[in-house]
Amino acid sequence: MTQKRLVVAIVGATGAVGEQMLEVLQERKFPVERVVPLASARSAGVNITWRGRSVKVEELTADSFDGVDLAFFSAGAAISEEFGPIAVEAWTVVVDNSRAFRMVPQIPLVVPEVNPHALEGEVKLVANPNCSTIQVVAALAPLHAVAGLKRVVFSTYQSASGGGREAMDELRDQAVALLNFGTPPVKQFQRRLAFDVLPQIDRFEPDGFTREEHKMVFETRKIMDLPDLPVCATCVRVPVFVGHAVSVNAEFDRPIDVETARAALEAAEGIELYDGYESYPMTADVVGSDPVHVGRVRTDPSVPHGLALWVVADNLRKGAATNAVQIAEQLVAACRWA
Amino acid sequence: MTQKRLVVAIVGATGAVGEQMLEVLQERKFPVERVVPLASARSAGVNITWRGRSVKVEELTADSFDGVDLAFFSAGAAISEEFGPIAVEAWTVVVDNSRAFRMVPQIPLVVPEVNPHALEGEVKLVANPNCSTIQVVAALAPLHAVAGLKRVVFSTYQSASGGGREAMDELRDQAVALLNFGTPPVKQFQRRLAFDVLPQIDRFEPDGFTREEHKMVFETRKIMDLPDLPVCATCVRVPVFVGHAVSVNAEFDRPIDVETARAALEAAEGIELYDGYESYPMTADVVGSDPVHVGRVRTDPSVPHGLALWVVADNLRKGAATNAVQIAEQLVAACRWA
Repeated sequence: MTQKRLVVAIVGATGAVGEQMLEVLQERKFPVERVVPLASARSAGVNITWRGRSVKVEELTADSFDGVDLAFFSAGAAISEEFGPIAVEAWTVVVDNSRAFRMVPQIPLVVPEVNPHALEGEVKLVANPNCSTIQVVAALAPLHAVAGLKRVVFSTYQSASGGGREAMDELRDQAVALLNFGTPPVKQFQRRLAFDVLPQIDRFEPDGFTREEHKMVFETRKIMDLPDLPVCATCVRVPVFVGHAVSVNAEFDRPIDVETARAALEAAEGIELYDGYESYPMTADVVGSDPVHVGRVRTDPSVPHGLALWVVADNLRKGAATNAVQIAEQLVAACRWA
Repeated sequence: MTQKRLVVAIVGATGAVGEQMLEVLQERKFPVERVVPLASARSAGVNITWRGRSVKVEELTADSFDGVDLAFFSAGAAISEEFGPIAVEAWTVVVDNSRAFRMVPQIPLVVPEVNPHALEGEVKLVANPNCSTIQVVAALAPLHAVAGLKRVVFSTYQSASGGGREAMDELRDQAVALLNFGTPPVKQFQRRLAFDVLPQIDRFEPDGFTREEHKMVFETRKIMDLPDLPVCATCVRVPVFVGHAVSVNAEFDRPIDVETARAALEAAEGIELYDGYESYPMTADVVGSDPVHVGRVRTDPSVPHGLALWVVADNLRKGAATNAVQIAEQLVAACRWA
């Protein structure tokens, strides 16, 4: 049986993630009949490239989803909240990259290597997790399977691209301004990011954590199906264009040594393990790649059954576009559109 | 009684820390009779500025310490190992900023706000701790006094200047090269630092931790006089010129809430507390300042009696020069040269 080819809409087609979506769909030979690039009125009319041909971006409206089989949303939570239900109403399956629906109990929040079973049954809308969460759960799941995760502490090193294309442009403009003794523009971030580190991503919550930190806590618990897992996150923006790194300190219920941990990671799908102490991933190694890169696997001697890890991934690919396309691939494999 | 004015040698006077030493000595009106700037043959002959006048840098030799009361060493461990004992032999009191003597049991390793008592008795050589260690122990000591420190996890964001002046130059040259589509030079760091984060500072030890990470573990224990304190550190170089930040997760023996923690930090000497959730220190706030800047004080809900903190300091000042001069001030106050 041949797979039916799908009409695929990309909401936010001109954004940093939307662009990667188009690329990943082509690279992975996703069964696309036709793409429908959608964006706000501001970006409508520009052209994107699909299979070597120009396709005009259309303005997103309530009628955009007629005849669309599958829509990837990556245009912020407000757009997803408004147009996600409209798409579902039009029988379009939605894979949503915003935070809008992630914590809704009946909506699956999926990293295909970690909780593919969450896609069983009739799925209308799937939430794609937060970028930094995807990479850490991908690294922790194989270790949890061996030793039982008990507590985890994250400190992140997140790139400007997590804030979108304008944020990357601003980092570049700030760096150029500073290197020319000029005044760096500050619009996209709360403070200047170039040649500094900014311990705030998204707004603050009443408990003193940021929303980005809450995402890492609550999404990790939901994806790993560990609703009471103790998690603490400190999320920091660093002056890097693309690629997020996370320093992870994990505690387990049962003993797990470095060799066992490395074997589990080596055998895991979607993980690239850096072997030896002196080989470790940096963002330069991961940009444009799909796996989650894990290095510096060490015994954390400060706690029973502890491990420390350094986890790096392309936040626009595995942290967003690739994971979303993998979700769609799984829906295809489950004959959602057979 | 008037304080005797001292002949003060600066070993490594042309380096990034040496330059700050000269500045801090002047700012704090340290009782200097005469400075003796010393450096390797390569830098000897250049001039430094002292109290508005030019002073020629002399080559460091075995005779350099005749008539010198006090010497600040900041020229790397090999120089300290060779010339530190020679200086002591010449009755010069040494404050050493290298790692050479820090873990020698009978040598005091001092952060004056934390363990001033370690300077009691006849002191010939004092070790100045590692930059990132100084700032975290200064922040942890007042909290330990309240609730008893039980375990601590550090993830650092350390600037290029920790590697000296050439490292800062290389970061700038790399950034300029990348922004002009050129090839960035890589000599001072293991890999390119500009627009990336480098999870290696100093060489690797057999347990998979780096020497910088070991310093944070062993020096924290020695300074805080907690020889069995469980500590885990991940040390990361970030593309920042000056200023180190540390994400700290601390666990205590007894309950400590955010208000109590903030009150203890507010009352502590040498700490600048950022009040409110939305106010936090960045390196831009700390460069040229002496205090340790602490913000984002939160309850870490993932563990009993846990706190999370964000600690930033000027690594060339409190992390090196200022702390060394404070040690010398304490020796002066104790009438070491009365």
